[in-house]
Amino acid sequence: MTHETLDAAAAVLPAEAIDAIERAATSAHRHDDLFSERAANIKQSAVRDVFDISMRPGLVSLAGGSPYLQSLPLERLSETAARIIAEDGLTALQYGGGQGTEELRTQICEVMAAEGILDARPENVVITAGSQSAQDVATKVFCNPGDVVLVEEPTYVGALNTFEAYQVQVEAVPMDDDGLVPELLEARIAALQTAGKNIKFLYTIPNFNNPSGITLAQDRRQQIVDICRRANILVLEDNPYGLLRFDGEPLAPLRAGNPDDVIYMGSFSKIFAPGLRIGWALVPAHLQRRYYLASEAVTLCPPTLNQMLVSAYLRDYDWKGQIETYRGLYAERCHAMLAALEMHMPDGLSWTRPQGGFFVWVTLPEGVDTYPLLHKAIDAGVVFIPGAAFMHSDSPSNKLRLAFSAVPPEAIAEGVRRLAPVLREAIDALA
Amino acid sequence: MTHETLDAAAAVLPAEAIDAIERAATSAHRHDDLFSERAANIKQSAVRDVFDISMRPGLVSLAGGSPYLQSLPLERLSETAARIIAEDGLTALQYGGGQGTEELRTQICEVMAAEGILDARPENVVITAGSQSAQDVATKVFCNPGDVVLVEEPTYVGALNTFEAYQVQVEAVPMDDDGLVPELLEARIAALQTAGKNIKFLYTIPNFNNPSGITLAQDRRQQIVDICRRANILVLEDNPYGLLRFDGEPLAPLRAGNPDDVIYMGSFSKIFAPGLRIGWALVPAHLQRRYYLASEAVTLCPPTLNQMLVSAYLRDYDWKGQIETYRGLYAERCHAMLAALEMHMPDGLSWTRPQGGFFVWVTLPEGVDTYPLLHKAIDAGVVFIPGAAFMHSDSPSNKLRLAFSAVPPEAIAEGVRRLAPVLREAIDALA
Repeated sequence: MTHETLDAAAAVLPAEAIDAIERAATSAHRHDDLFSERAANIKQSAVRDVFDISMRPGLVSLAGGSPYLQSLPLERLSETAARIIAEDGLTALQYGGGQGTEELRTQICEVMAAEGILDARPENVVITAGSQSAQDVATKVFCNPGDVVLVEEPTYVGALNTFEAYQVQVEAVPMDDDGLVPELLEARIAALQTAGKNIKFLYTIPNFNNPSGITLAQDRRQQIVDICRRANILVLEDNPYGLLRFDGEPLAPLRAGNPDDVIYMGSFSKIFAPGLRIGWALVPAHLQRRYYLASEAVTLCPPTLNQMLVSAYLRDYDWKGQIETYRGLYAERCHAMLAALEMHMPDGLSWTRPQGGFFVWVTLPEGVDTYPLLHKAIDAGVVFIPGAAFMHSDSPSNKLRLAFSAVPPEAIAEGVRRLAPVLREAIDALA
Repeated sequence: MTHETLDAAAAVLPAEAIDAIERAATSAHRHDDLFSERAANIKQSAVRDVFDISMRPGLVSLAGGSPYLQSLPLERLSETAARIIAEDGLTALQYGGGQGTEELRTQICEVMAAEGILDARPENVVITAGSQSAQDVATKVFCNPGDVVLVEEPTYVGALNTFEAYQVQVEAVPMDDDGLVPELLEARIAALQTAGKNIKFLYTIPNFNNPSGITLAQDRRQQIVDICRRANILVLEDNPYGLLRFDGEPLAPLRAGNPDDVIYMGSFSKIFAPGLRIGWALVPAHLQRRYYLASEAVTLCPPTLNQMLVSAYLRDYDWKGQIETYRGLYAERCHAMLAALEMHMPDGLSWTRPQGGFFVWVTLPEGVDTYPLLHKAIDAGVVFIPGAAFMHSDSPSNKLRLAFSAVPPEAIAEGVRRLAPVLREAIDALA
């Protein structure tokens, strides 16, 4: 491993992981030449690295975007799971159809109606192992090596990992406080297509973007789809947080009025339970068959028991009431984080004020690299994710992501208080 | 769609599916040029097509290789699932580590010990969404488009679908009654490598091959690995049925004495419950990191609840006793099928006599194509899978697969009795 690639890795990897890579690289093996070209592009995710560290007792983790499951009715869910296995175990524990059960696909159409999509049909829904798998399948079905995928910057690190595993050329389009900037998107598309590039889709998280918390403004949404349609580019819309808006009604998804141009991805990970790994794609009718077959080739079928548990939850529980609970809970936590940032953070910092979701995005002065600050923060008893994890480029980043979803308000305040001197020291060192 | 490709599709697709393809092909869409090259290689699996047909009441399905779950302790499993969610729901319903829980990886090493692998270490186990996903990840990590994957012929249709989705050149090596023929494998490797081909791995199901039921003889196993090692080719060993040997001890897997040269794939789908979608790969230490990262990029993490349920089953239940039950049950059903074949089948047919697993492979006289017989069989009240589904080539096949795993002995006898006149008529038509 060269020093250039090591430095690049340092932008997203903790020291232990880099040590392990170096050790592995020094013992070259005769199988090394068997790896596919794409394998070299599959990198460790900084979010996942920090996953283990975050579990250390005493640390305040503002790193992982886990939902707060304590508010779920666990006793009742336990009875529901028991009933499914006792009464329907021969179905729940057996293979099922590759597209997912018809019952759950029908219910998912109701969930999407709450999200603002009123014309979804069960036959165009493909249930996947979390929406991560839905992204993987979309990339598999559409992208040859060298094709271009457009993303907003910053964007979800898991999606970047997926795209890079298919040797796709990822091109980042800047956001402002209202999300993707249509003019910049249009100009970038024109430049890339003029250069002969094959752009396959735009990947976007329009509501409470992970990691920035930014929401794409309503008046830009149709503009974005129209720009893509004119250029013959699909939109891959990822909307795991859409129902978790703190106030008011959800903004209509890009998919809402554009059934032929948008592959819409949803998930039960943020509104119910990520440990079940149940997500879905709503696929335009003319693309459904190939999408479905590719999904089947990856996992055969989604887990039946998990689908039946989600179905029972949507059928027999007040799932909309639970979402109201979550909205209030996350709004309170977001408020606690913003208040703590206001109180403790030094001058020279700015941060986003999300309308929903799990994340606040903090910007430090130019010249600060947040990656080396992670270890100092851990020493100070708090964990965050450095901004470079959410960028396609390997350059240092002066941003960082703070998650407020999984931590009670008092702990959020304490975490921000611990983080403040680490950031202040870094800013002072610039002068 | 040309007639040539339609004919090719006809070898694996029922008429309804072909109609749908034709309809889709006539309404060309401006997004058609967005599909990846690999998307064209992802085909409908005949096994999955027949999945729905098999559910029709009154039909005897000898098609699907589903395990017989009626013998599982469903009441007790229902209590276990309830306890996991009630007592550990915050873990069971939350995100987990990408490699799977340490508890289950440790227990999987015990399962592999029963399968004949005594030196497996939990850190080299990657838990996946069924072993289908383990195959997908292996292909992703090792295969560039145009690389060669060797398979035995016939082989598992799901693996063929996975390989083709990566635009791999699949090369079939013949089997005899003792499995893969080492001399033929060696000659094929030499010819391909002389022709400049990049062979990445040999995919093999050494025990009770799906669909043929054939077992690779003990004295060929090390030979096969040695041939691959000399040629710098990995072995991808798929062993879902290994513990379901009717008599005697399991034969040692190819992986047993060859930790650096074999990626071993296991599954709980046949020995416990396929609806949980929990499989695994045991990966050579020097390949583990890239394999694990690729797996994480596809699904983030395996479902936590499902892993905990499997862990509880392995910890608190007599899982080895359950396997004894299954061995007796499947032996009885296999015996019933062989007896019925002996009694009802016309001259000119032969079939395998498996030592375990789920399947018997029937060979008709040269010149009979079993695909068109499927519809006649369905009219006669019985379903099978035509042999062409398990071949890489698109030629007609005079073979068919009969599964005895999911059907009681009386129904097996009745199914074979219904099938016999359909086959007799086809043979008579040859004369």
